[in-house]
Amino acid sequence: MHWQVPTLADVLQARRRIAPHLRPTPLYGYAGLSELLGAEVLVKHENHQPVGAFKVRGGVNLISQLDADERARGVIAASTGNHGQSIAYAARLFGVPATICVPEQANPVKVASMRGLGAELIVRGRDFDDAREHCEHLARDGYRYVHSGNEPLLIAGVATETLEILEEAPATDVVIVPIGGGSGAAGACIVAKAVNPDVRVIGVQSDAAPAAFRSWQQGRLVEDRMETFAEGLATRTAFELPQHVLRLLLDDFVLVSDDDIRAAQRRLIETTRNLVEAAGAASLAAALLLREQLAGKTVVLILSGGNASREQLLDVLKRT
Amino acid sequence: MHWQVPTLADVLQARRRIAPHLRPTPLYGYAGLSELLGAEVLVKHENHQPVGAFKVRGGVNLISQLDADERARGVIAASTGNHGQSIAYAARLFGVPATICVPEQANPVKVASMRGLGAELIVRGRDFDDAREHCEHLARDGYRYVHSGNEPLLIAGVATETLEILEEAPATDVVIVPIGGGSGAAGACIVAKAVNPDVRVIGVQSDAAPAAFRSWQQGRLVEDRMETFAEGLATRTAFELPQHVLRLLLDDFVLVSDDDIRAAQRRLIETTRNLVEAAGAASLAAALLLREQLAGKTVVLILSGGNASREQLLDVLKRT
Repeated sequence: MHWQVPTLADVLQARRRIAPHLRPTPLYGYAGLSELLGAEVLVKHENHQPVGAFKVRGGVNLISQLDADERARGVIAASTGNHGQSIAYAARLFGVPATICVPEQANPVKVASMRGLGAELIVRGRDFDDAREHCEHLARDGYRYVHSGNEPLLIAGVATETLEILEEAPATDVVIVPIGGGSGAAGACIVAKAVNPDVRVIGVQSDAAPAAFRSWQQGRLVEDRMETFAEGLATRTAFELPQHVLRLLLDDFVLVSDDDIRAAQRRLIETTRNLVEAAGAASLAAALLLREQLAGKTVVLILSGGNASREQLLDVLKRT
Repeated sequence: MHWQVPTLADVLQARRRIAPHLRPTPLYGYAGLSELLGAEVLVKHENHQPVGAFKVRGGVNLISQLDADERARGVIAASTGNHGQSIAYAARLFGVPATICVPEQANPVKVASMRGLGAELIVRGRDFDDAREHCEHLARDGYRYVHSGNEPLLIAGVATETLEILEEAPATDVVIVPIGGGSGAAGACIVAKAVNPDVRVIGVQSDAAPAAFRSWQQGRLVEDRMETFAEGLATRTAFELPQHVLRLLLDDFVLVSDDDIRAAQRRLIETTRNLVEAAGAASLAAALLLREQLAGKTVVLILSGGNASREQLLDVLKRT
């Protein structure tokens, strides 16, 4: 398949389209994090989005561009939660019917949110890729299928977050982005390299679900195990379009352990007094791993989402 | 003392002054809360402010207006946390030295935040009023003392939150505001009654620290017990200026129990996926108490702050 790789022009269009619906999110500094890393640390609060995650930028951009036929047919998507919330939110905004396929183990707060947004839910399969395969099967019935990674309009939409970052903090040296499907990191790369190629974009994934990392490293799409507790990072396959962008533009890609993510999640919750889901804390876990090379730099951590369930929170906060 | 009661004109000026420093906060609807209350429920996310609480609007407005002499002398304030964070944040913004007196039992995440913002901290006394009395003593040494309630510029500043609400949701019927010192509720009343007198403003306090409630009810300043766990609502005295405004303009004032607040806090965290401190959940606790009279209405809950510590969170989330 030949993908149209989004450009900065597409990101500027996306920003214009989402502006009536989504406010720019804050970029805040925290002395506690700056001290911890010996760097100027800024946190991009995508958890402040209406569905508590960055994905909604892409959903609103994509759904706003559907033609009348696609709107009438309705959209379908598979998700562990944040892509589904994004599509459900945007579909409701534009009066489009939405169906979301979620795996059995999906995060209950994300599922409740999708239901509250009026989406029809289909619970199927053990993990994200099971749900996705079922969804792709159903999509043949006529829905407009919205893949969570292979969609130029989703990538251009989520890329607006990096545009906001580089406008507000032009001295940014490094942006660290959690990677699940890779759309967020692809968007960050497209903007950073167009605005200022000196800005380093670093991706991070859990070593318990490293498909995107291995695919990036090997230059081809590979499957790998999927054992992370961080559902926002939980894919066992990599996706063609984001991987294409990451291969061209991503500066570095690191793996962290699930325990590192839990510790970073606890630290971020305490320091920022924001709810942080596991995936959203991966950027701090990566920064701690790269502490030496980040010293003295201006580092932006993308807090990609805040959708932690009560059980997840208790588990993270109880550990010392 | 004769106070200058802020007017809508002062609030408009405050908005102009804070605009370069603080973004408007989101007003989000949540299906789960609307179902729970049988009303159209919107949440005003003051927890998204840079210090995680509404107070900073007032701090920035006030500090921006200090004269050269006051700036040079520096400011001093007493606080259980959010007023202190607000003054520390604003003082740093304008290069003014800040000293904050906090009680021994102050919330540790708020204390860490004030220290991170560069304020000098003085820990003194058992509760807020002890710290406040010590602070007022120190203030004689020449600092500009910033009282947490008796400051027209603080009230005009925090009132900007209600201006944002009524612009974004003009169909609002009821605004529910947690009351500690009363500056937030006073600001809400000033804006609501100027913009649309039909908007009802309802205050809420814990029945374990009802000084502001009793003072409002009796039409004079009274002291009362201070036993609430919700430090944002924890005063044992009432303040003259906010009480004056509340007596003139507040439509209703209710008391809720600390257990009601804990239950509301847990519910808000789960439904909104935002960190919510106890005081910030009092508005939902009040709405549940007033469920019958709110049915079918558009109700705005002011989520005044998100600064919960890990211990507080664990305590709230562990209960079922």
